[in-house]
Amino acid sequence: MSAADQAATHRQAQGSASTEALLDALRSLLGDAALLLPTGPDDAEFTRYQTDWRGRYQGHALAIVRPASTDEVAQTVRLCAQHGVSIVPQGGHTGLVGGGVPDASGQQIVLSLQRMDRILAVDVTNLSMTVQAGCLLAHVQAAADAAGLLFPLSLASEGSCTIGGNLATNAGGTQVLRYGTARELCLGLEAVTAQGEVWHGLKSLRKDNTGYDLRNLLIGSEGTLGVITAASLRLYPRPASRTAALVACETLEQCLALLARARAVLDAQLTGFEAMHRRPVALTLRHLPDQARAARRWMASAEGDTEQATVPPWTVLIDAASMASAAQVQQSLEQVLVEAMAAGEAQQACLAQSQDQYQAMWALREAIPLAEKAEGQMVKHDIGVPTSQIPAFVGQAEAALQQAFPGCSTVCFGHLGDGNLHFNVQGPRSQSDRDFLVQHEHAVNRIVYDIAQALGGTISAEHGIGQLKQQELAQRQPAVGTHWMRAIKLALDPAGTLNPGRLVP
Amino acid sequence: MSAADQAATHRQAQGSASTEALLDALRSLLGDAALLLPTGPDDAEFTRYQTDWRGRYQGHALAIVRPASTDEVAQTVRLCAQHGVSIVPQGGHTGLVGGGVPDASGQQIVLSLQRMDRILAVDVTNLSMTVQAGCLLAHVQAAADAAGLLFPLSLASEGSCTIGGNLATNAGGTQVLRYGTARELCLGLEAVTAQGEVWHGLKSLRKDNTGYDLRNLLIGSEGTLGVITAASLRLYPRPASRTAALVACETLEQCLALLARARAVLDAQLTGFEAMHRRPVALTLRHLPDQARAARRWMASAEGDTEQATVPPWTVLIDAASMASAAQVQQSLEQVLVEAMAAGEAQQACLAQSQDQYQAMWALREAIPLAEKAEGQMVKHDIGVPTSQIPAFVGQAEAALQQAFPGCSTVCFGHLGDGNLHFNVQGPRSQSDRDFLVQHEHAVNRIVYDIAQALGGTISAEHGIGQLKQQELAQRQPAVGTHWMRAIKLALDPAGTLNPGRLVP
Repeated sequence: MSAADQAATHRQAQGSASTEALLDALRSLLGDAALLLPTGPDDAEFTRYQTDWRGRYQGHALAIVRPASTDEVAQTVRLCAQHGVSIVPQGGHTGLVGGGVPDASGQQIVLSLQRMDRILAVDVTNLSMTVQAGCLLAHVQAAADAAGLLFPLSLASEGSCTIGGNLATNAGGTQVLRYGTARELCLGLEAVTAQGEVWHGLKSLRKDNTGYDLRNLLIGSEGTLGVITAASLRLYPRPASRTAALVACETLEQCLALLARARAVLDAQLTGFEAMHRRPVALTLRHLPDQARAARRWMASAEGDTEQATVPPWTVLIDAASMASAAQVQQSLEQVLVEAMAAGEAQQACLAQSQDQYQAMWALREAIPLAEKAEGQMVKHDIGVPTSQIPAFVGQAEAALQQAFPGCSTVCFGHLGDGNLHFNVQGPRSQSDRDFLVQHEHAVNRIVYDIAQALGGTISAEHGIGQLKQQELAQRQPAVGTHWMRAIKLALDPAGTLNPGRLVP
Repeated sequence: MSAADQAATHRQAQGSASTEALLDALRSLLGDAALLLPTGPDDAEFTRYQTDWRGRYQGHALAIVRPASTDEVAQTVRLCAQHGVSIVPQGGHTGLVGGGVPDASGQQIVLSLQRMDRILAVDVTNLSMTVQAGCLLAHVQAAADAAGLLFPLSLASEGSCTIGGNLATNAGGTQVLRYGTARELCLGLEAVTAQGEVWHGLKSLRKDNTGYDLRNLLIGSEGTLGVITAASLRLYPRPASRTAALVACETLEQCLALLARARAVLDAQLTGFEAMHRRPVALTLRHLPDQARAARRWMASAEGDTEQATVPPWTVLIDAASMASAAQVQQSLEQVLVEAMAAGEAQQACLAQSQDQYQAMWALREAIPLAEKAEGQMVKHDIGVPTSQIPAFVGQAEAALQQAFPGCSTVCFGHLGDGNLHFNVQGPRSQSDRDFLVQHEHAVNRIVYDIAQALGGTISAEHGIGQLKQQELAQRQPAVGTHWMRAIKLALDPAGTLNPGRLVP
């Protein structure tokens, strides 16, 4: 990466006179309020931009800039490029891999898109919507809903993440099974290049075969190729009814048979298929009993006594949505459950009978990360394999981890229908979680990633690479992939202005 | 494009000794049978590879090579790169824009993938399938069907086009509304780079956030960045039942209201929404009465006399598929039709009552290109606009063309649900079609493309760029898009080995 090295050297050589000139220029461009400088170590507002929310990454930024328009973004990038200062684009700052945190140099500019938060247009006939990058995901969802439509991207951080960040990281979430990831929900982009030019790719077309797919190149590029400033999004008719069921399965093979059966009956009405191993459900029952009330209720209904109920090996949450009546979708889902029980694929099943029960089922699923946190620290993974390889993955990973770290335990749950599992590992009780993490994180990762990779899988299904997995990617990606990524980065951002040192191995 | 120019100069300077050495090396690599050399002007087999099927483009190749494996493709590319000879990758050779036709130099190698036609694996649980690039689309469909599943890509040339060509051009077709274009149906690729290396990107994952989206960069790149050698494809549960209806509408606004209504009732069961203006239906009635029997039948049923029946301004073909029974999907579609008639959005409607009637409805739609051909030569377009802009596009284009060429006529039909129209223009009767084409094609294109572009549309929704629309793209694409395309091409294929002079403006 000689060009990036040269740029870094160039930056260092310039010294503070140039830095002051850049800050002056940014101040006169954006106004005082849009330029944040650190006032001291206790500057909480400033610190928020340079620390990730999980507290894993702590950077040190030269300044935070908060432009209010695409033109201001373009001028900011041009000024930074002229002064050899690099930029870390930032949306809602909810990432899990440190991709939006500046490095420790104190020489990078954090460019926050949060002030660019307008819904620009909704086209009901075309089922599309144009928004600025800084729109909160929840606001995008609400604007679609207000037009009688659905923007289906949905994830835990939707109240604080931005659509620009969702697209820069190709966010996944709970409705991928039916609607795809952020990538599949984007029709067009506007972005500012590393040279501070604006790419006007804000089309709202379902079909457009005019050259290289620059939109998809930007999506998932984690701010290293361009700063996404606006997006055209794909909307869907809003389902008239939703329902869900909890199902107990003995094995992952049974879960997969249930998935095939649910697909065959529900087709596109199947919107979610989440699986939870016994331990995450047990942890939720222990640490967050209120959120686990769906689990308590359905186990009680089967066994008569909540406290004595045994958590089944696997709990599946099936989510279904339909343009037809609630009765119709309930009937279809009930058919799935009855057939699965008859075929011995499920030991127990419970269909949501009310909106409250529906929400309780999802509350159980969504409480797992909090229950994990209450339990202790874990080595976390976001792996993906073909769904057919899920049983092999879990079986092999459990066995290998027990062999390497006897007494360790795992918390396995996730988007089974997408082949995406969060497979988190806690050390044996003989060791503190912190010590285990410090001593063995790398070895645990290696075991888990080796198995996922051997089964045709990925080390990052939805969280991205950022800084957390950059070395893993470098080691595991085929050489041609690394060569292509570097060549593209160098071709489009030769000076390394945009989020250097992130993502690209 | 200085690197490409340099490469061309380099090639010319090498002369025939080097060419002979290359051919010898290819012969010893691939065997005699896999290397075709021209035997004379009447060599029909050779000519087939260097002429497009519509007879619009006639190239002159040095040789045709037909490797049998990915390794042979890689070695072929390496040899050609070493000798400074460029390559035109070719699949089923059914393209419409000249992207797979060699130039006139007699110095390019046509690399045909047709011998690499194996289905490598079908994973029923993961709903995926791995195939070599030279598989005929119809064979891919059949292999999915044999596994009880659906590969939904469907287009007129499916009996002769290959999946590699479909992906290299991001083919569309008749089921995009539900399932997307070829891009959305691909999970992974194997490809040979311009340096003759193999990119092993043949994953079968729904979610994989590990770096730049190289798969989508290759899809639609028309053989200019890599030679696709294999693909992992997304399969779907196979619908249990299909049905269709023909609907008469007075206006395009009515067609769009019908589309919204069909979506609201059918949701993902809506698999196709095709519209045909009066003239293409009338031309089919005139030239291909057998294929127009669905049109005759339904107009007769409404008016009592087939011959006197008036073709409605717009005929819509709605296609629906479902995992449920034929009765259920018929009932849902009937609900759409009854509601649309009651709301005054449709003047007449006819639901297919048998498989034979279903096929007759599609035969009408699919006969249009043949009826056009029987009628005469036309200036053809494959435009896309947001569906909400379809009435404006057709209204403005009709008016502007009548003003510029009084007495001209249009043939307008296509994938209305995708915003993609084939909008073809025939000159006034006072002039031969041939003369009109020669004299006015450019002016007609300009009128049609200016209007599509002003409405946020595209000059190529599904056919691609190739050589046919390269100049148009150069003139109409935003400067940043052209800059990025050139930079990426130069970064990945600096010597211009892969399909030089195509697609990239």
